[in-house]
Amino acid sequence: MQMIEGGVCAPKGFRAAGIHCGIRPNTTKNDLALIVSDVPCTAAGVYTKNKVKGAPILQTKANIANGTAQGVICNSGNANTCNADGMEIAQKMCEIAAKSTGLQPEDFIVGSTGVIGQPLSTEPMAKAMPQLAQSLSYTGSDEAAKAIMTTDTVKKEYAVAFELDGVPCKMGAIAKGSGMIHPNMATMLCFITTDAAISPEMLQKALSEDVPHSFNMVSVDRDTSTNDTVTIMANGMAGNKIISRDGTAYRTFAAALHVLTVALSRGIAKDGEGASKLMECKVTGAPDQETARVVAKSVITSNLFKCAVFGEDANWGRVLCAIGYAEAEFDITKVDVALASAKGTLPVCKGGSGIEFSEEFAKVVLGEDEIQILVELNQGAGEAVAWGCDLTYDYVKINGDYRS
Amino acid sequence: MQMIEGGVCAPKGFRAAGIHCGIRPNTTKNDLALIVSDVPCTAAGVYTKNKVKGAPILQTKANIANGTAQGVICNSGNANTCNADGMEIAQKMCEIAAKSTGLQPEDFIVGSTGVIGQPLSTEPMAKAMPQLAQSLSYTGSDEAAKAIMTTDTVKKEYAVAFELDGVPCKMGAIAKGSGMIHPNMATMLCFITTDAAISPEMLQKALSEDVPHSFNMVSVDRDTSTNDTVTIMANGMAGNKIISRDGTAYRTFAAALHVLTVALSRGIAKDGEGASKLMECKVTGAPDQETARVVAKSVITSNLFKCAVFGEDANWGRVLCAIGYAEAEFDITKVDVALASAKGTLPVCKGGSGIEFSEEFAKVVLGEDEIQILVELNQGAGEAVAWGCDLTYDYVKINGDYRS
Repeated sequence: MQMIEGGVCAPKGFRAAGIHCGIRPNTTKNDLALIVSDVPCTAAGVYTKNKVKGAPILQTKANIANGTAQGVICNSGNANTCNADGMEIAQKMCEIAAKSTGLQPEDFIVGSTGVIGQPLSTEPMAKAMPQLAQSLSYTGSDEAAKAIMTTDTVKKEYAVAFELDGVPCKMGAIAKGSGMIHPNMATMLCFITTDAAISPEMLQKALSEDVPHSFNMVSVDRDTSTNDTVTIMANGMAGNKIISRDGTAYRTFAAALHVLTVALSRGIAKDGEGASKLMECKVTGAPDQETARVVAKSVITSNLFKCAVFGEDANWGRVLCAIGYAEAEFDITKVDVALASAKGTLPVCKGGSGIEFSEEFAKVVLGEDEIQILVELNQGAGEAVAWGCDLTYDYVKINGDYRS
Repeated sequence: MQMIEGGVCAPKGFRAAGIHCGIRPNTTKNDLALIVSDVPCTAAGVYTKNKVKGAPILQTKANIANGTAQGVICNSGNANTCNADGMEIAQKMCEIAAKSTGLQPEDFIVGSTGVIGQPLSTEPMAKAMPQLAQSLSYTGSDEAAKAIMTTDTVKKEYAVAFELDGVPCKMGAIAKGSGMIHPNMATMLCFITTDAAISPEMLQKALSEDVPHSFNMVSVDRDTSTNDTVTIMANGMAGNKIISRDGTAYRTFAAALHVLTVALSRGIAKDGEGASKLMECKVTGAPDQETARVVAKSVITSNLFKCAVFGEDANWGRVLCAIGYAEAEFDITKVDVALASAKGTLPVCKGGSGIEFSEEFAKVVLGEDEIQILVELNQGAGEAVAWGCDLTYDYVKINGDYRS
């Protein structure tokens, strides 16, 4: 299994494109993405648990209820959420995409990301669609990845190659992240493609079982978005024997998916709004996995500790505090904590109490741009990893005036 | 019932003082507070639910287990938490205070606030105590209030006058807030005094029933502190008939307590670390009170909306988003939202969808330093109010390098 280039176009038979259609008037950045498979795909999705759900989510759920899809249409610059006519807009987007690609409206997964509750006109999309469809290419992942970015500073585009029963398969994805990132059952927009053959049931199972350990362990600001969506389309063009039950091939597929989703999760966290550092909290020795998850997320969501990481200050008391208010049952007096980076590991707390450490070495460790917080609970075998980022001046700046 | 001056010294028979003893070396600000009643008091307390509990909390719980206390000793600059010898230090602080005041160590409520997990020497406290005890005065609340401040920019000191069975009574308090403020069953340090006569059981009941609707509705940064403590001492010197059961007098006492705790809660929120604006979220029309509480807290803790308030941006989609991920059951399509301040009220959302509003008037409303978010769920009679503050550059600055 290895990471490869090509994003959503790495698997066979997927074309993609992106264009600036004008939803965001004050820029020439891409704001409309299109992905199409040459053949119909099995499809699965997971979505936000926020009670406020973007209209595109409701439309996508309806469209892939039969376990199939063949394309993705997604705009940035407007979330099409809390609009009275949101469902009509989402439906219209599918119709526009269908018209220029020769597919049916219900073949489309539809996504929107940007400001909530602003009117959205489909006119610019209708106007740009013929050109967008024409520019679909087997190397177009890059343009599509750029078209779903909002405050993202780097595109999130990954792909992985693996084998199923000796047959080479590929899986690719694009995602957007940055702000309003505290996924619950899904993350901000992520579109995954694969040429592996797999039944809709096993595809949904693979996605649903992966998300709690990948995207749902990411948090930028504890704000669970209204539009969180992860979808996967499998077109079967790799030619492997179709996966229709648990077994070696399914587990290989699930492992490939996890490699991809962890790369995406880290990418989203590291490019969190205003972030200067990736924070990765590894919890081990928990009474059970759920406890490990809760503790890891508590640490990477603490505003106070996130500020300390920004300031490169080894204020480990804030880690203990965040472990202490995590909603789980365990013995706090057994907890060891260390801070680590490529420069080394710095134990800061043993059995719930502080231990002496070199402030000089702490500065060296925390000077890196990827910081690990290692939490050993010493009371079981439960483990989990969560990803977040520091809280910086730029987060406040970006979100103090996002709409204008 | 009316607000009066005098803080913890407003009630009869309470003296207070504050001094710089040197726990914080780089400043001459007060860092040690002492409060003493002329006669023994009934006492009650509520404390943090964080699993990491400051040693002073454990000591205080033990000392007032019998329902009585006569004084408070509290330092700032060091939280005496996650120290292996924390309990010895807390005990020693009580002994030092007892020695200079002629009381017993177990007569003291003890508190500490500041950095977690740093060694704390009691020597500076022992040295300064004779002078501190000598300076105890019936007008010393101000000095004590200053001595428990950390990153607070203003002291929190309030008092209220009320009558019980025709007898004039008073109640006063000092508190510290600012950072690591997301109280769970209590807030950061708050010491309340009253000259009303009330049994320990009714005093504890009054405090325990009040806190969920006052301090527990405050959040600055979602970080539940390890040292949250609210205590109340009642010395009975007002001469009212002792309150020993529910009834008119008890309800008057509870009402006075609530006036005081709401003033403190607003004061703590408004002086949140780096805050430029107080946010007050009023939720009405909820299916029940608990739902109203959860929704109100969700709104005032959203980092994204807190940034928007800082930027005076009427980004109400973030309010809807925060209402939507609140962990409660209700119908989001019935929700109305308005933003308000002394300058007027601006409806922004009706039935879960946006409505047109004047951006110009929005700027006027949001230009004030106290902002209300009015959420009408339209599905019951449950109500709640929560207090928070905006998220600013200064919050990041203060917490990027708190220890140095």
